[in-house]
Amino acid sequence: MRNISKDNITQAVLDSLSDTPDPRLRRIFGSLVRHLHAFARDVELTEEELYAGIRFLTETGQKCDDKRQEFILLSDVLGLSMLTVSMNNDKPAGCTESTVFGPFYVEGAPRCEQGEDIARGAVGESCEVDVSVKGLDGTPVADAVVDVWQADAEGRYDVQRPGLAHAQGRGQFRTDAQGRLRFRTVLAQAYPIPTDGPVGRFLKAANRHPWRPAHLHFMIQAPGYETLITHLFKDGDAYLDSDAVFGVRQSLVAPWVHRAEGGYALHHDFVLNARPV
Amino acid sequence: MRNISKDNITQAVLDSLSDTPDPRLRRIFGSLVRHLHAFARDVELTEEELYAGIRFLTETGQKCDDKRQEFILLSDVLGLSMLTVSMNNDKPAGCTESTVFGPFYVEGAPRCEQGEDIARGAVGESCEVDVSVKGLDGTPVADAVVDVWQADAEGRYDVQRPGLAHAQGRGQFRTDAQGRLRFRTVLAQAYPIPTDGPVGRFLKAANRHPWRPAHLHFMIQAPGYETLITHLFKDGDAYLDSDAVFGVRQSLVAPWVHRAEGGYALHHDFVLNARPV
Ligand SMILES: [Fe+2]
Ligand SMILES: [Fe+2]
Repeated sequence: MRNISKDNITQAVLDSLSDTPDPRLRRIFGSLVRHLHAFARDVELTEEELYAGIRFLTETGQKCDDKRQEFILLSDVLGLSMLTVSMNNDKPAGCTESTVFGPFYVEGAPRCEQGEDIARGAVGESCEVDVSVKGLDGTPVADAVVDVWQADAEGRYDVQRPGLAHAQGRGQFRTDAQGRLRFRTVLAQAYPIPTDGPVGRFLKAANRHPWRPAHLHFMIQAPGYETLITHLFKDGDAYLDSDAVFGVRQSLVAPWVHRAEGGYALHHDFVLNARPV
Repeated sequence: MRNISKDNITQAVLDSLSDTPDPRLRRIFGSLVRHLHAFARDVELTEEELYAGIRFLTETGQKCDDKRQEFILLSDVLGLSMLTVSMNNDKPAGCTESTVFGPFYVEGAPRCEQGEDIARGAVGESCEVDVSVKGLDGTPVADAVVDVWQADAEGRYDVQRPGLAHAQGRGQFRTDAQGRLRFRTVLAQAYPIPTDGPVGRFLKAANRHPWRPAHLHFMIQAPGYETLITHLFKDGDAYLDSDAVFGVRQSLVAPWVHRAEGGYALHHDFVLNARPV
């Protein structure tokens, strides 16, 4: 520690972290430093590049507010969110798979009744959603709390509309005694993740587009079951093979059926994994 | 890309970055993703931990302002700054070694004359500094621009004193025709890096102290030479073996001589590396 060089610094930092009292944090801190230093060595990071990285992270933090979470976006576009989701949600075959949470969930969405319309003025073609929630053995899950949120026909969430005073395209329901939930909304459209911040600059530098295929977000919570955070993706969407946040799983692609009388209908059966007792 | 899992996501993200036009950025982005994912896999990162990390980084960015750079502090306490400095400043034997820049440099410090006192009201015992700047062959470097900055007897930089309207303990000089620079100041003391932000919480979680051994910062710029960013550390300081930012090099430890008539004197000869032509 009195004569630090590029050859001994990684060990010096690891030694300094070896007294971390919490064993889980000790493991995380150590691994973080090993991988961070390995990255810097691998690319032979220059001082200018380190400062550019520090500026980028600073601006990412400063872009965040109560309606914008730029670090979640960054984690999403680097695939870190989906890696973490997929490592932590291995489920038995037959259970609905998870995908990324994303930055557009809002606590305290309006509590809605069966059949209610969550659009509340959001623009788009009408869509009737009819889903069920079951256990792996087919047992209907009654009274499950189901949060739904989505973008509108212009590809925007309500929180992306400054000045909008009420929720649009989001709501919280409970399944009925048969585990069923019906509601009305507008057709979700593909949308670009926000590109007016550091994450947008990163995508541009990488020659990547910011689009996500059209999807409907669900979070389903019920006693005795693992919470399910997932999407349904609209079959046929042009971006299913290049989701900017790497969230697509084949099992989550569902048909939005165009009805003769106009509008769309979506049916899907969610299967929850029992929580280990 | 249509059926992402923990087994294929890293390759999917790497593929998405393979069109990055700038070859240097392409290499950096690829290595960053490989190491970031390897870290998450190594520790089997949970979703709660990912969100805790995202909150930590967000708060780190939001702690930054025009006088506080919490991400530089974070890079410093993780040893990333010193690793980068030491990888990029291999110099021939005999040249003065570099160390971390730190977060307390301020652009536009007062321009000072030879012999001037940079304390300007900073508290501390008086100190006379007498240094020279030479090339490796002994040639004096005249008219070199020398930035100096330091903490006071209370271990604080001027930018850490809210409401202070003028610079204290910092200044910009030019060496004379013999490459010499003399100025007056107060004795720098050991100080804790700021702990009222996320970096302080990290240090606490790791059971690490925040102290840096007493030092004087120098940045020396002269045409034909590599810019030297370094410190002189006060010999005998209690924290030389546990600098919170891993910046100590034996060659930079210098004696502050206590003089019979009171106050301290510091002499040092800096040796610049010629810039490759
Ligand atoms: Fe979304
Ligand atoms: Fe310092």
